[in-house]
Amino acid sequence: MRNLRMSIEYDGTRYRGWQKQKEGVPTVQEKIENVLSKMTGEDVQVIGCGRTDSGVHAENYIANFHTYCNLTIEDMLNYLYEFLPEDIVVKSMKDTTERFHARYNVKSKTYVYRINNNKFRSVFNRKYAYHTDEELNINEMRNASEILIGTHDFQSFTNLKSKTKSTIKTINYIHINQKDDMIEIEVNGNGFLLNMVRIITGTLLEVGKGNLKPSDIEKILNEKKRSESGPIAQAKGLFLKNVQY
Amino acid sequence: MRNLRMSIEYDGTRYRGWQKQKEGVPTVQEKIENVLSKMTGEDVQVIGCGRTDSGVHAENYIANFHTYCNLTIEDMLNYLYEFLPEDIVVKSMKDTTERFHARYNVKSKTYVYRINNNKFRSVFNRKYAYHTDEELNINEMRNASEILIGTHDFQSFTNLKSKTKSTIKTINYIHINQKDDMIEIEVNGNGFLLNMVRIITGTLLEVGKGNLKPSDIEKILNEKKRSESGPIAQAKGLFLKNVQY
Repeated sequence: MRNLRMSIEYDGTRYRGWQKQKEGVPTVQEKIENVLSKMTGEDVQVIGCGRTDSGVHAENYIANFHTYCNLTIEDMLNYLYEFLPEDIVVKSMKDTTERFHARYNVKSKTYVYRINNNKFRSVFNRKYAYHTDEELNINEMRNASEILIGTHDFQSFTNLKSKTKSTIKTINYIHINQKDDMIEIEVNGNGFLLNMVRIITGTLLEVGKGNLKPSDIEKILNEKKRSESGPIAQAKGLFLKNVQY
Repeated sequence: MRNLRMSIEYDGTRYRGWQKQKEGVPTVQEKIENVLSKMTGEDVQVIGCGRTDSGVHAENYIANFHTYCNLTIEDMLNYLYEFLPEDIVVKSMKDTTERFHARYNVKSKTYVYRINNNKFRSVFNRKYAYHTDEELNINEMRNASEILIGTHDFQSFTNLKSKTKSTIKTINYIHINQKDDMIEIEVNGNGFLLNMVRIITGTLLEVGKGNLKPSDIEKILNEKKRSESGPIAQAKGLFLKNVQY
């Protein structure tokens, strides 16, 4: 039996996230499973690297699936390209070891949050960035982000309701870069809780706007309460950039 | 009476070009005139810098209009931002001399054509670039483009049917740049005939694919027949980048 690993790019605008839900709810996983099942004649189950929120995009979402299908990689890629909707593209695929599991084997993930900071939003980024016309103090945002680096209890930075899952995660780096009117916040960590990157971004934006100080971040972490952190940033600015195994 | 000059960004996907047509045909000019007329209480006529084809985008389309309205620039910009659809943004506006005319006073225009050159199209550029998976010889495209620089009769590079309009135009430069899987063809000239940039691009693509040689360009120019040049490149890859006065 083959185990195939895929890298997928998708525009999340039309989807209720990656993970399959009940029939009729558009999700990326369902679209891909349907095409792969038709292609192979099997009931293909795709294992994704994790959930993404409704409306979030991906540049390199990693997933794997098992099949007895003996088509070449090129034929499979062409089939997927032809039959998937135009906002989902399987960019590459390879045969991998039987044991590879796209979710269990994740070492870290890299997300990018894009902010269009200009008096008026750019029409070309209107679906791919959060827009604000408020002046942002990037240096203060960088200072605040440094406090989040390392291993912390991120309970203040998630909408996760479960009390059984650990909320301790490690953030390896946060890079904040500005180019013209576009600000990118790149976050790499060993795992992310529900809405975590968007709440981190929303909180850093509060710092950028002067509503919070970098020193408040320590307090927010310690309080372990969602109500302490900033508002959740819009889904459309968030991209899963890469997954490391 | 005030004469106001605007710089407009628009995503041309949903529009049948800039220029107003009969009622019910969506055009950028009509959308802007409607909002300005509502704002001023006058029957505003907007003078654009020229036509753009159906589906073509603009980063800085220049237009002007006359009005007795005495709102501040900021109030007008905010009104337009609020009432225009999200794919049209008036980015800036200024009072200009009575004699400024956005079409008659054009000295030159700069267009950019974007080509996504990759095995599979990028989902994020699917509405903003032409995609081809064929290998393109950029150097040969550059060699071919050089033959188009200067003043020529561009009759082979237009779908213009009129026999009364001059087809002699001057191209000041064509720059072809590649960054990762994106190729940009930037063309600056004193004026452009119907479909001219798209037919130039389509012809340069034929050179890039090896179907034409750079030396064929001279012959195509001399033949003065549309049938000699390459196919018209898709509208969605073309952007009006700037207008010089």
